[in-house]
Amino acid sequence: MIKMRLLNGQPQNRISMADRAFQFGDGVFRTMRCTGGAIEFWARHYSHLEQDCAALGIVCPSASILLEDLSRLRPVDAVLKIIITRGETARGYSVPDQLLPNRIVQLAALPAYPEQLYQQGVKVRVCSTQASWQPALAGVKHLNRLENVLARREWHDPDIFEGLMLDRDGFVIEGVMSNVLVLSDNILSTPKLEQSGVSGVMCEVIFDAAVQHGLQVEKRAWTLDEIKQSDAIWLTNSLMGLLPVSDLCGRHFQSHAAQLLLSGALKQLRQKEKFAIVDLAGMTKG
Amino acid sequence: MIKMRLLNGQPQNRISMADRAFQFGDGVFRTMRCTGGAIEFWARHYSHLEQDCAALGIVCPSASILLEDLSRLRPVDAVLKIIITRGETARGYSVPDQLLPNRIVQLAALPAYPEQLYQQGVKVRVCSTQASWQPALAGVKHLNRLENVLARREWHDPDIFEGLMLDRDGFVIEGVMSNVLVLSDNILSTPKLEQSGVSGVMCEVIFDAAVQHGLQVEKRAWTLDEIKQSDAIWLTNSLMGLLPVSDLCGRHFQSHAAQLLLSGALKQLRQKEKFAIVDLAGMTKG
Repeated sequence: MIKMRLLNGQPQNRISMADRAFQFGDGVFRTMRCTGGAIEFWARHYSHLEQDCAALGIVCPSASILLEDLSRLRPVDAVLKIIITRGETARGYSVPDQLLPNRIVQLAALPAYPEQLYQQGVKVRVCSTQASWQPALAGVKHLNRLENVLARREWHDPDIFEGLMLDRDGFVIEGVMSNVLVLSDNILSTPKLEQSGVSGVMCEVIFDAAVQHGLQVEKRAWTLDEIKQSDAIWLTNSLMGLLPVSDLCGRHFQSHAAQLLLSGALKQLRQKEKFAIVDLAGMTKG
Repeated sequence: MIKMRLLNGQPQNRISMADRAFQFGDGVFRTMRCTGGAIEFWARHYSHLEQDCAALGIVCPSASILLEDLSRLRPVDAVLKIIITRGETARGYSVPDQLLPNRIVQLAALPAYPEQLYQQGVKVRVCSTQASWQPALAGVKHLNRLENVLARREWHDPDIFEGLMLDRDGFVIEGVMSNVLVLSDNILSTPKLEQSGVSGVMCEVIFDAAVQHGLQVEKRAWTLDEIKQSDAIWLTNSLMGLLPVSDLCGRHFQSHAAQLLLSGALKQLRQKEKFAIVDLAGMTKG
């Protein structure tokens, strides 16, 4: 459940219905993991937020104002979500000049991912809802997420952890709530997201971790059959970290040696790349 | 400007940020024209709203409860917009059973479309922002409208009335805020919307009007070059009605005899298919 929300720095759980996020999904978001009062990979998250705002022509709030907001939430171990909307307008798609964006930060409890999932892996299905072909939005973590909602509605079996979404040409794009990493011939790869999908920070982190450990990486187009023939598959997002797939539509994957390497490297980077927000909260108090 | 809004029947301009329309664009909408206290083509609008809700698995409120809401807005000459959202949830894409949708009705002033536009026609450009390929959402008037926002941001020239959006294969899908009708070899046609686009009520009305007047109609795939070679092009939505295109990327179109026929037929249908909401307001008062 959401524990606290700020709208432009003020406690607020409601938003104007004139806000374009409500009317059109006209905004972007980022979800971050906060542990021990520090935001993991803050610099990367902010950099992606800036890029996403730029892609849509939304004025991105400064890192300092967002950090000030986030520090007011006094997070310790929590999910932090930032939403930036284009702002509020009367009616119609056109946007007046000088429109002020709305910024929302919210704090929720960390989801529980049992250690068992990381040891044994998770079961994954394939969704019939396609990832849409839209080069203007590909890679951007925007608020038009209906296709993810529809894809998630396809299954109710609690044993299935995630569903893969393919584009119209049958290439694997992503999971409903995660990016996908594939190991094949000792190359770690992730699908190209040039026409569809969301570019996640954690996927980028794992890529960097892999490179640091001498693993070759690439972005490429994968068909479902191809990834079924691969040596290992992982799901990744900022909350789950790196989660091995044990079953993809009945194709079973054994635990792979690279799991230990990558999860160890991720653990190191999580320690290294974090931003202690509690200190900031202390500062604003003082 | 918006003059009044009701949320689930109560005056309210704000919505919970837990609403899935705000978080994901998880909802549908319809825009209607009200003249002299009567909603034009109400039955068709409601039918489309029901279909759109069904496509997304949202429980559609009954026509009677929506009409009661709309009557409370006491519209005379106005734009009425209905938004149905999937409802409010904590976090994540998955949807609990029995989620209650939120219904919003809002009233705004009718936009002024000068008679001159109908006489002389309007200038239209082609957008570089594509209409996304997404069969699960094609035809549905949903709240994921970022591509329309981006397409509308492509031009600032006030002489350009509308921009056409093409799909990835170069087929014309729609205008940013309108559907497209094309006359060629005495056949009135509109693009197929099986993979992209929004199916508008007014486009359906004009089709019916054309059939009633003995014109042949069809849905087909049109390339930009093909529609440039056609005899006439119109834009249509519930507010503008039927607006002739006089200039499409420098290709000039003369006023076509079918304009008089179709606009006359539309005028008749507007009179015939309207629902007097003022009477209902009187009833709820009494």
